[in-house]
Amino acid sequence: MNIAIIGLGLMGGSLALSLKKLPFVNSIVGSDHNKEHQKVAIELSLVDKIVSLEEIKTCDVIFLAIPVNGVIAILKTFNNIPKETTIIDLGSTKELIISSVPSSIRKNFVASHPMTGTENFGPSAAVENLYKDKVVVLCNLEDSGEVQQQTSKKIFKALQMKKYFMRASEHDRHAAFISHMPHAISYSIANTVMKQENKHNILALAAGGFRSMSRLAKSSPHMWEDIFKQNKENLLEAIELFEDELTTLKNDIINENWDNVSDTMNQGKTLHDILD
Amino acid sequence: MNIAIIGLGLMGGSLALSLKKLPFVNSIVGSDHNKEHQKVAIELSLVDKIVSLEEIKTCDVIFLAIPVNGVIAILKTFNNIPKETTIIDLGSTKELIISSVPSSIRKNFVASHPMTGTENFGPSAAVENLYKDKVVVLCNLEDSGEVQQQTSKKIFKALQMKKYFMRASEHDRHAAFISHMPHAISYSIANTVMKQENKHNILALAAGGFRSMSRLAKSSPHMWEDIFKQNKENLLEAIELFEDELTTLKNDIINENWDNVSDTMNQGKTLHDILD
Repeated sequence: MNIAIIGLGLMGGSLALSLKKLPFVNSIVGSDHNKEHQKVAIELSLVDKIVSLEEIKTCDVIFLAIPVNGVIAILKTFNNIPKETTIIDLGSTKELIISSVPSSIRKNFVASHPMTGTENFGPSAAVENLYKDKVVVLCNLEDSGEVQQQTSKKIFKALQMKKYFMRASEHDRHAAFISHMPHAISYSIANTVMKQENKHNILALAAGGFRSMSRLAKSSPHMWEDIFKQNKENLLEAIELFEDELTTLKNDIINENWDNVSDTMNQGKTLHDILD
Repeated sequence: MNIAIIGLGLMGGSLALSLKKLPFVNSIVGSDHNKEHQKVAIELSLVDKIVSLEEIKTCDVIFLAIPVNGVIAILKTFNNIPKETTIIDLGSTKELIISSVPSSIRKNFVASHPMTGTENFGPSAAVENLYKDKVVVLCNLEDSGEVQQQTSKKIFKALQMKKYFMRASEHDRHAAFISHMPHAISYSIANTVMKQENKHNILALAAGGFRSMSRLAKSSPHMWEDIFKQNKENLLEAIELFEDELTTLKNDIINENWDNVSDTMNQGKTLHDILD
């Protein structure tokens, strides 16, 4: 199997590191619009070589590991590709991408979202085992061709990922709660502190808790702007439900309803009965 | 030096594990109002033995590793202790505690806040090196006795902690931004998801980002209720400044002011130029 990866950052680069080890993978080529990323990807041996978009279209499997608006744009250029070719995107939103796929390549296309990542980005952020034992969501898979369904399942199985199948609309709403809203909050926490006059003194005291809560604010603004655009309505709903929760807690603190404050924290804590 | 630790949970238990290794420490005794914690603390050899409050009062150094309202209550019972005794509290708030210390023992008392911890609690959560290389804030140290200043500095130095000296009022405001407000937010994120009908399906997709943002919601509600009580005004100010940030970001998303959204995320990201 000859594989191409468009976008050699954290997700694409890490994917290359994992795919390289699979017995059924013959070659991995790549492309990236950033010349420096191309250079680093070769230096780190993430891919065998950097190739043109035309050459990419001759591969058996093409991964799209670029920001979600880029996925929509590039899919529009994929005409005249062989019937058996599989195109898999890794974007954090799914509904708008799926509705934007040209009908001529709809069967070639598989919409996936690997629930993994770190706050770092670029090819130097690539790490082995980023995908292993993680969840991958496959959306509207019945609309992909039979070959493409089998190929994508084979690859994600070989990457030792846990597959979840769902509708794109369901995925996007879930992702807003689990990922997109928390990112918005993390950026807002960071800005709250950065606007304090004595931010250096405040941050000198930062321990693990604050690092956890501000870590996501390291993420790529370019990538997240696209995600917020594509999942706007679900994101806003999740933010507003969160705001309601925080307002309730705040008002209980203002009014010194400490029993309510305690109940609220005890309720929140039950999340970890499910999560852990 | 004979040391007593009141409260054998995460903070007190971990402290015991570190103090045990110090050459100038002869014995470590402890107490905990929870019988099960007493038992576990002995089983894990955190302390040499569990003793009464009267016996604790005969030790050279007494650490208070209990919730902050408990610190205030117990300090009121510390009368007739020797002039040379050092009492060190580890609470996350400092102003109300300091203003509540009986004047007869003010010189005995050192107000400290080690900026460390995990989301776990109880003696079984105790870990070695919880304190090493972390920041400890010492508040209003000039109001402690000369012996007590030297003793506390000696211990925190031996624990390899970085000492910061500041006024209690300054500490409490910083702690609200760096720790107390992020805890309130983490509980609210957890509750937002827990109130969704399909919370199990949502949480099945949780990856590292969501785990980071919800981790603090595992913390002890009992302990945090006290902290929120004692640092109410600073906490509310920090929450409201955060709410302003999130509202601005939300409105920019609603109005599709994507340049503003991008600027906001790029600003937030600069936090990590200071923090890392």
